[in-house]
Amino acid sequence: MAPQLRVPALLPPMLRCPAPAPSAQAGAGEQVRVAVLGASGYTGEEVVRLLALHPNFKVTTLTGDRQAGKHFSDVFPHLLTARDVPPLVKIEDVSWDNVDAVFCCLPHATTQETLASLPAHLKVVDLSADFRLRNVDTYAEWYGGEHKAPELQKEAVYGLTELHREAVKQARIVANPGCYPTSVQLPLVPLLAANLITAEDIIIDAKSGVSGAGRSAKQNLIYCEVTEGINAYSVTRHRHMPEIEQGLSDACGKDVRVSFTPHLMPMTRGMESACYVKLADGASAGELRMHLQERYREESFVHVLPAGQVPQTHHVRGSNHCLIGVFEDRIPGRAIVLSVIDNLVKGASGQAIQNMNLLFGLPEETALLQQALFP
Amino acid sequence: MAPQLRVPALLPPMLRCPAPAPSAQAGAGEQVRVAVLGASGYTGEEVVRLLALHPNFKVTTLTGDRQAGKHFSDVFPHLLTARDVPPLVKIEDVSWDNVDAVFCCLPHATTQETLASLPAHLKVVDLSADFRLRNVDTYAEWYGGEHKAPELQKEAVYGLTELHREAVKQARIVANPGCYPTSVQLPLVPLLAANLITAEDIIIDAKSGVSGAGRSAKQNLIYCEVTEGINAYSVTRHRHMPEIEQGLSDACGKDVRVSFTPHLMPMTRGMESACYVKLADGASAGELRMHLQERYREESFVHVLPAGQVPQTHHVRGSNHCLIGVFEDRIPGRAIVLSVIDNLVKGASGQAIQNMNLLFGLPEETALLQQALFP
Amino acid sequence: MAPQLRVPALLPPMLRCPAPAPSAQAGAGEQVRVAVLGASGYTGEEVVRLLALHPNFKVTTLTGDRQAGKHFSDVFPHLLTARDVPPLVKIEDVSWDNVDAVFCCLPHATTQETLASLPAHLKVVDLSADFRLRNVDTYAEWYGGEHKAPELQKEAVYGLTELHREAVKQARIVANPGCYPTSVQLPLVPLLAANLITAEDIIIDAKSGVSGAGRSAKQNLIYCEVTEGINAYSVTRHRHMPEIEQGLSDACGKDVRVSFTPHLMPMTRGMESACYVKLADGASAGELRMHLQERYREESFVHVLPAGQVPQTHHVRGSNHCLIGVFEDRIPGRAIVLSVIDNLVKGASGQAIQNMNLLFGLPEETALLQQALFP
Amino acid sequence: MAPQLRVPALLPPMLRCPAPAPSAQAGAGEQVRVAVLGASGYTGEEVVRLLALHPNFKVTTLTGDRQAGKHFSDVFPHLLTARDVPPLVKIEDVSWDNVDAVFCCLPHATTQETLASLPAHLKVVDLSADFRLRNVDTYAEWYGGEHKAPELQKEAVYGLTELHREAVKQARIVANPGCYPTSVQLPLVPLLAANLITAEDIIIDAKSGVSGAGRSAKQNLIYCEVTEGINAYSVTRHRHMPEIEQGLSDACGKDVRVSFTPHLMPMTRGMESACYVKLADGASAGELRMHLQERYREESFVHVLPAGQVPQTHHVRGSNHCLIGVFEDRIPGRAIVLSVIDNLVKGASGQAIQNMNLLFGLPEETALLQQALFP
Repeated sequence: MAPQLRVPALLPPMLRCPAPAPSAQAGAGEQVRVAVLGASGYTGEEVVRLLALHPNFKVTTLTGDRQAGKHFSDVFPHLLTARDVPPLVKIEDVSWDNVDAVFCCLPHATTQETLASLPAHLKVVDLSADFRLRNVDTYAEWYGGEHKAPELQKEAVYGLTELHREAVKQARIVANPGCYPTSVQLPLVPLLAANLITAEDIIIDAKSGVSGAGRSAKQNLIYCEVTEGINAYSVTRHRHMPEIEQGLSDACGKDVRVSFTPHLMPMTRGMESACYVKLADGASAGELRMHLQERYREESFVHVLPAGQVPQTHHVRGSNHCLIGVFEDRIPGRAIVLSVIDNLVKGASGQAIQNMNLLFGLPEETALLQQALFP
Repeated sequence: MAPQLRVPALLPPMLRCPAPAPSAQAGAGEQVRVAVLGASGYTGEEVVRLLALHPNFKVTTLTGDRQAGKHFSDVFPHLLTARDVPPLVKIEDVSWDNVDAVFCCLPHATTQETLASLPAHLKVVDLSADFRLRNVDTYAEWYGGEHKAPELQKEAVYGLTELHREAVKQARIVANPGCYPTSVQLPLVPLLAANLITAEDIIIDAKSGVSGAGRSAKQNLIYCEVTEGINAYSVTRHRHMPEIEQGLSDACGKDVRVSFTPHLMPMTRGMESACYVKLADGASAGELRMHLQERYREESFVHVLPAGQVPQTHHVRGSNHCLIGVFEDRIPGRAIVLSVIDNLVKGASGQAIQNMNLLFGLPEETALLQQALFP
Repeated sequence: MAPQLRVPALLPPMLRCPAPAPSAQAGAGEQVRVAVLGASGYTGEEVVRLLALHPNFKVTTLTGDRQAGKHFSDVFPHLLTARDVPPLVKIEDVSWDNVDAVFCCLPHATTQETLASLPAHLKVVDLSADFRLRNVDTYAEWYGGEHKAPELQKEAVYGLTELHREAVKQARIVANPGCYPTSVQLPLVPLLAANLITAEDIIIDAKSGVSGAGRSAKQNLIYCEVTEGINAYSVTRHRHMPEIEQGLSDACGKDVRVSFTPHLMPMTRGMESACYVKLADGASAGELRMHLQERYREESFVHVLPAGQVPQTHHVRGSNHCLIGVFEDRIPGRAIVLSVIDNLVKGASGQAIQNMNLLFGLPEETALLQQALFP
Repeated sequence: MAPQLRVPALLPPMLRCPAPAPSAQAGAGEQVRVAVLGASGYTGEEVVRLLALHPNFKVTTLTGDRQAGKHFSDVFPHLLTARDVPPLVKIEDVSWDNVDAVFCCLPHATTQETLASLPAHLKVVDLSADFRLRNVDTYAEWYGGEHKAPELQKEAVYGLTELHREAVKQARIVANPGCYPTSVQLPLVPLLAANLITAEDIIIDAKSGVSGAGRSAKQNLIYCEVTEGINAYSVTRHRHMPEIEQGLSDACGKDVRVSFTPHLMPMTRGMESACYVKLADGASAGELRMHLQERYREESFVHVLPAGQVPQTHHVRGSNHCLIGVFEDRIPGRAIVLSVIDNLVKGASGQAIQNMNLLFGLPEETALLQQALFP
């Protein structure tokens, strides 16, 4: 029997999926109506890009204050098959009755008041830093201004999905984690929680792609200043530090201080966190690896590599995956834990969709299973 | 009504799609069983990557002579969700009874005899250059050796999908076009066929990403020799030239000779062909643009930009799209036609899947509608 | 005899040279005192970088309006051995009595009035576009505003050194050519002047590094928007076009119109101009090459490659060299002429120093003979 | 007085310097005759590039076994002004009587026997790893084979110039340090020697440009596999580790074990070593910085930055400089020490010339004072 004769039986479900699905559009009343606030930046773009493959979410509102009035494809011409998304509007012109879910991609500081003003029927995933720190005093110290929505802060759930899945499912507002904190907590939180490493002397040397700095034009981000070089930045004062420390402290039940040095390097996407840790008495690097493998065995997006295999950012580009490798250090009693993600996907918009899927009772992998783009 | 209550109704079809679909696996006997020959190179990888989202094709055989025995994820560790693909085997160990469709990603010259030896029940898309030139003497002249399967050559259909769709549908063997010829013929063939440009003095300056040169280790391809520079190569003697001339000659019914200068530049994926053409008497750049817009209006993958908009390779990276822009030249009577593709997708593996979809009676967009990856 | 015994005899002259020469400083009254206006941009930086090796020029004044008050090494920390250069001042605070020579690196439009206001004892090389076009109406048309110093324009000499050396030697004000015009005129002017190619149908496809766009922060120049892609820009309306046409028209004594399409590509430095030209009756590509080889035989910076060798931008990075290759085209009667330069050196600051050397009766190679940086 | 009238008095010394100096050539018998062994790799190329500006060294012999017979500019076409260097020959065809100085750029393992066979009148700087480790057993353990010239090993002096200057001056054979060891020892050796940091728990996260891997074609070095990503490699087993430990152990008089993790990143040149160290009791990061500033105050190539300034590899590209920054860590009692070099210059060929200058009684800066190439 010729294969093409067998195929048609499968066609209808298939058609609903990778293409802008005609049948789904017909039943658009059934879909979750999504607003992306601050859609003219990279994280907003990435939400729209990934949602193009999502069968249940439909982007119906895009805001962008300075770009209001523009068609989205004028701002991001590569989103060719997103031509049915609406043009950008100002946030004050949004009619919230027509929205079910909000991805908030606004800069920190402005986000607090914006979210506080939204109707309570909306489910929100906030990609800014504004609701990540439980302690609003810590927020004020690191972000240079008092928190303007402390009540809402109490409602927000920190959404590192693999670590806080159950809380996310019950939440209305999710504070989506930062990229560095995601890459660091995924390997270290389970190790601290299991007392396999000590809370002291955790040293993190991290490297990020440039897209983490956003799309705004700054001299230090122009091509000629970035290509073919590397430099540390914000040494000992990067704002992701208290977020990392909050997560690690929670994991082991005592205050943790980390050494954290981020680097800017010539790549658009990708992040590697090299974590240099002390083994707890009696523990070995092999046990660390086994523990993480066990912990993440059922996860779709976190992969602990076999001994000797080094995680590369190349292998997660454009995907929601996190790769982790564990190595025995040459200094006795120490281990090296390497983790890589795509800072715009698992480190931002992909994880935001993963969380939003949970908020709406959907399988969290929905629209997130594409492969990394390599080469 | 809460959105999450409405959603479940949609779940079953959705589940069949972006994820490795359980229901599809259940009915695996219904699926097209795909072999990828030469799967350890970039075009083979790209076929596997794209097929991971395909609901009807299942990769069941991968060959790679030097890498035989390895798991595919050892060769391409980024294909994390392709972990159910089989390990690489030698081509002589393939059991062809279990295969319906073949993507042939072998180097030119070796391909002729391999394809000639395959059972006739297989549908084949060949990504090498071996069956692209109708005239086997031209093949011998440019590829440095007599054609070893001239009979099979007669059966092969040249598969620039948008231009030869009907022939492809009837074919058993498709010669998948080269990357440069794809980017050049998509804009120029309709213009020549409509007598809007002259067949004389067609000048093409093309720029390609490095992945077009494949994955083999050569000194001129190592990072330090490529980054931060550009150079022409194979000036006046690139092997895609006769393929371009064949297509353009067919379009206008007379022998066409083109000036074609490819450049190697520091990017992995992407190709721009700048075509400098003479207008036919009375024609204008605006008419050229309108004609192409009309010609490709119903196409999913070819997009003719409005006046003044410049196609960028950034906007097609990782996607099967082709963008075309037409400009009035400053020299009266001339026009500039710019076209961009991703050389590995529309210029190779994406178009191969597009053709294979047609061979099996599937919508040609299946598994090919993801957005470009930008930034 | 041990080599180290022979060496000391050579020491004194050597010491004067690559290092900030003590003896030269002693005789500082003998040196040319140089001001660089607009020193906080890339061309200003490049003048300072190259002059660090110059035995006769001493940078004594640097201006930069927005950065006034800063030390130069705060603006360009890589100029470690330029620590004896003065801090940046506002242009109105310069004491011109202490200056002999001016490199003017200001943006176009502002330059006219600035130069008109300078004392007449100064020798000036202007790197802006303001004095390049003899016809001030053409200037007004392409640069969007009337020329504000038409008298000074008459005094200015266009300084493509190899083509206008004698005029430069007599000049007080040199209009330093644009980068694209330098790369195009060096090969084409001698060919047009010798009637080896026709003035019609000259098609130029050019590719430039990003540094040509300067150091100002613009969204389209940030790393993520540039890396790993290519696009044409300013198609048919780039401002270097009238400058190219002026030079080519002069060469052949009639009005020339060119097709000129520049591209932005992911490299900091480097420029390739691919010129597609028609041979004059009876001429051959070989004759073109021979003519250029003859024309530039005595030149230090222009090198015509043997048949078959392709010029690469990699091979001129950081140097003042121009490489030219000539190829017979596949279309009979046509030739391909490829030329490469570093846009910041021969295309800007290097040529500016070459011209200033001539203004002061120095060998034009002074401080310009370092090798390209490769890899 | 017109400036150009004053200038000629300076001309003769100037002419001797950046140009191929006529007077120096006239007295060629006075010059040191240099052989570069293994000149077809990147470190060999870099020696030749830098020596082009050297007034006392003249390259008279170049060897390259596989490329023997080729002109050097065929192997490295960018060395345009090095056209007077000789063609490549096989090492067995060298006439050593005509050589005074040898830069040995051969791969490790082959170097031992080669150097052992050379006449004793030659002064040698060896850029391979073969003579860096005093303990030949350690060599055997890490380099996988017994040392074949243990006697010569005893004669060799380890040449990290700023740390071993006096020994180098007396030496005949200098083992030029590895790139990583140079970038690590420059900051850490003085700190350990002064008891400002502890010898325990020294953690080094290093990032290198691709040129460190040499010019040979390997799949993992081709452009598409390197660009736009980062990965650690040789985790806990990189061969520079015993060399680092040897230097640090010497500094503090006891056995030191370090944690050292190198990364490959998408840049051609440049290296950053981030060293995470424990302060000795009572010491502070400020004291570390002051101590290093004092230690290197008179050095031409080592620069300790003011508090808060971050060293960038961009700022040393193509130069022989090392930049060091010291930061108080967020974990009390720790400091972060960052150092950057160009791996091919201070990390290889530049330091080799610096050492050779000393071997011949020349100022060590000779030919090494050019600025970094930025942008």
